[in-house]
Amino acid sequence: MDFTGRLATLRQRMEADGVDVLFLTRGANLFYLAGVRRQLEHGTDHNAFGDWACGAYIGRTGGLVLVAPRMGGRFFESEAVDKPWIDRVRLIQESEDPLAVMRQTIADVAPGARSAAIDDRAWTQTSLAIRELLPEAADSLASTLVMPMRTIKDADEVAAMRRASEVADLVWERVTPFLKVGVTEYEVAREVDYQFQLAGAEYTSFVTGITFFGPAGVSRGGLLRATAGRALHPGDSITFDFGCVFDGYCSDFGRSAFVGEPSPEYLRVHDVVLQAQAAGIQAMRAGQITGAEVNAIARQVIADAGYDAHFTHRLGHAIGVTVHEAPPTLDVVDHTVLQENMMFTVEPSVFIPGRLGNRVEDVVMVTQEGGVPLNRASHALQIVGA
Amino acid sequence: MDFTGRLATLRQRMEADGVDVLFLTRGANLFYLAGVRRQLEHGTDHNAFGDWACGAYIGRTGGLVLVAPRMGGRFFESEAVDKPWIDRVRLIQESEDPLAVMRQTIADVAPGARSAAIDDRAWTQTSLAIRELLPEAADSLASTLVMPMRTIKDADEVAAMRRASEVADLVWERVTPFLKVGVTEYEVAREVDYQFQLAGAEYTSFVTGITFFGPAGVSRGGLLRATAGRALHPGDSITFDFGCVFDGYCSDFGRSAFVGEPSPEYLRVHDVVLQAQAAGIQAMRAGQITGAEVNAIARQVIADAGYDAHFTHRLGHAIGVTVHEAPPTLDVVDHTVLQENMMFTVEPSVFIPGRLGNRVEDVVMVTQEGGVPLNRASHALQIVGA
Repeated sequence: MDFTGRLATLRQRMEADGVDVLFLTRGANLFYLAGVRRQLEHGTDHNAFGDWACGAYIGRTGGLVLVAPRMGGRFFESEAVDKPWIDRVRLIQESEDPLAVMRQTIADVAPGARSAAIDDRAWTQTSLAIRELLPEAADSLASTLVMPMRTIKDADEVAAMRRASEVADLVWERVTPFLKVGVTEYEVAREVDYQFQLAGAEYTSFVTGITFFGPAGVSRGGLLRATAGRALHPGDSITFDFGCVFDGYCSDFGRSAFVGEPSPEYLRVHDVVLQAQAAGIQAMRAGQITGAEVNAIARQVIADAGYDAHFTHRLGHAIGVTVHEAPPTLDVVDHTVLQENMMFTVEPSVFIPGRLGNRVEDVVMVTQEGGVPLNRASHALQIVGA
Repeated sequence: MDFTGRLATLRQRMEADGVDVLFLTRGANLFYLAGVRRQLEHGTDHNAFGDWACGAYIGRTGGLVLVAPRMGGRFFESEAVDKPWIDRVRLIQESEDPLAVMRQTIADVAPGARSAAIDDRAWTQTSLAIRELLPEAADSLASTLVMPMRTIKDADEVAAMRRASEVADLVWERVTPFLKVGVTEYEVAREVDYQFQLAGAEYTSFVTGITFFGPAGVSRGGLLRATAGRALHPGDSITFDFGCVFDGYCSDFGRSAFVGEPSPEYLRVHDVVLQAQAAGIQAMRAGQITGAEVNAIARQVIADAGYDAHFTHRLGHAIGVTVHEAPPTLDVVDHTVLQENMMFTVEPSVFIPGRLGNRVEDVVMVTQEGGVPLNRASHALQIVGA
């Protein structure tokens, strides 16, 4: 990935917007700009000493310093190896004042800074500290600088996303033999996650979604527990929604299966969902159409078949270093004109709890001639022996 | 849990501090005060429409409204069931302006609000919006209000933490038969996580740490991948560091094992680590000692045995609804006098990469007579057949 080029572009944008110093948390923007990988966060807080000062401090005219707590700081030191665009990693010792470390770091990368942009998801504790250090500075959000860069994928990014999608295709192939009557939603999800780990993924790109539909019972969502999720019955349909992060980029994948001989209605729904996706993908011509219009085209196919009320979400979302890289989205609210090398999921569905569920999802690149899917797994309905 | 009582105490503290409205993100403080469980976050962002306005808005004189994006909002609706202290869940539709929803919600719970406290980890995007809505308001951090409440555990919390610790004890018992020459660090960690899920834990309280020590090679840390982590060899020692969230409260547990006949040095180190922990626990008398002093007492035992340089971290940290509920800590920097029903980990270790590693860790409650461990698993060295 051309991190040097991205940082150069960023600094041009900082110059244009009059931003002297940019603070980025451990997250997507920092990975995108400097290649520092993201650790999976847990729902409980780690609370290392000085953690609220942790992140990247980037000066407009040069300078990129990573600040991290001593506890856990080795991760950032290892991430900085072989990255000459990172000047140094500054670990905060328990004997220091984290605010003083922030003050010195800002002075180093942006002497006399009078304006700061801050990651949208930086902690309030952090942004209040930056305001204290730069009381005259106008705060702005980092997304204004970085999101327009992330929206259009370069060749390296397309290649990385193709790899991540190929891993999802592979996991689909490996998990289907695991499907049998009696297995639970939890057990299938666990197998998906395990297959991603065996394939070398960094982690899943969101919580794996395995949902059984049918008269035997409505699926229960919520927190992942071995005791949650019902067992698979003959006559059930199954929807799969999973993806991974591989080399820093996301995949997001969906297919459907049926246990036993599918009913005529189910086959018709499956066909409608595929047609809706195909219509949406075909319409994704660069410069010719908005996200809302693509969404409307796909939705019309489902509405014409009488299932409008059961397609309960947007058609898709941008994807890249984060799984939902919105905006732009393929949604009623988004009037962005699609551009070449934007990347979206296209994921129509028909969900009728207690009766049936069907979804297909691929990652699709926008081109002059329409959308080009990165996934290669067959769209055919997967049949499970009853 | 007495959420009604906690909210009453909170509002007294808001009155005393002159805070009209409190904003809490989806996280530890919101669980502690209102019982809304935490979803495990992924390293990649979900980016639901309006997510930056998502959280609880709590008025000083009454009113508690949860705001959530429509996408994923069902989770919050299900969390609000049977919680009369939550007035309502307000879902943000894609057709709305999230800032307008925030403005109306603040007006509802705290008409004429002139001061706001904001969760320390609320997104900068959120706190900038609150500042825009309440330009005259003095911002403060929620931790000032909530952390003093969380530090001392009531009887319900002690019971919950005992259950979470019992689950860790049980997982230790279930995972030891899995240890054999050739198994990898990844495979053992995966088994630990699986056993927590089978036991009904919400999730692990941090990334499970399984580390093999010995001449056969130095363990590699970093991201969890099936390909990471070396295999177990005869002559290795193993340290375990794991815990779970159960009914919203955390456990944090450590034990050690050896493959084959332990060397005299290893047995001595194991004994020293246990003595250090016992000395620390005994010293934890309410009102009598500071965190730094407890840390010094345990460290001295290890130093006297000649291993001071290999005990590379603090003795322990507070624990409760988050796993590292610091401050207070059992660390050189912490001069907090311990109080009854504070809860800490006590976790001395000796780590010599490429040679040996040993750690013991229990969750310990402070009483007038000294520390009382919640864990019941034996401290005896676990021997694995070579």
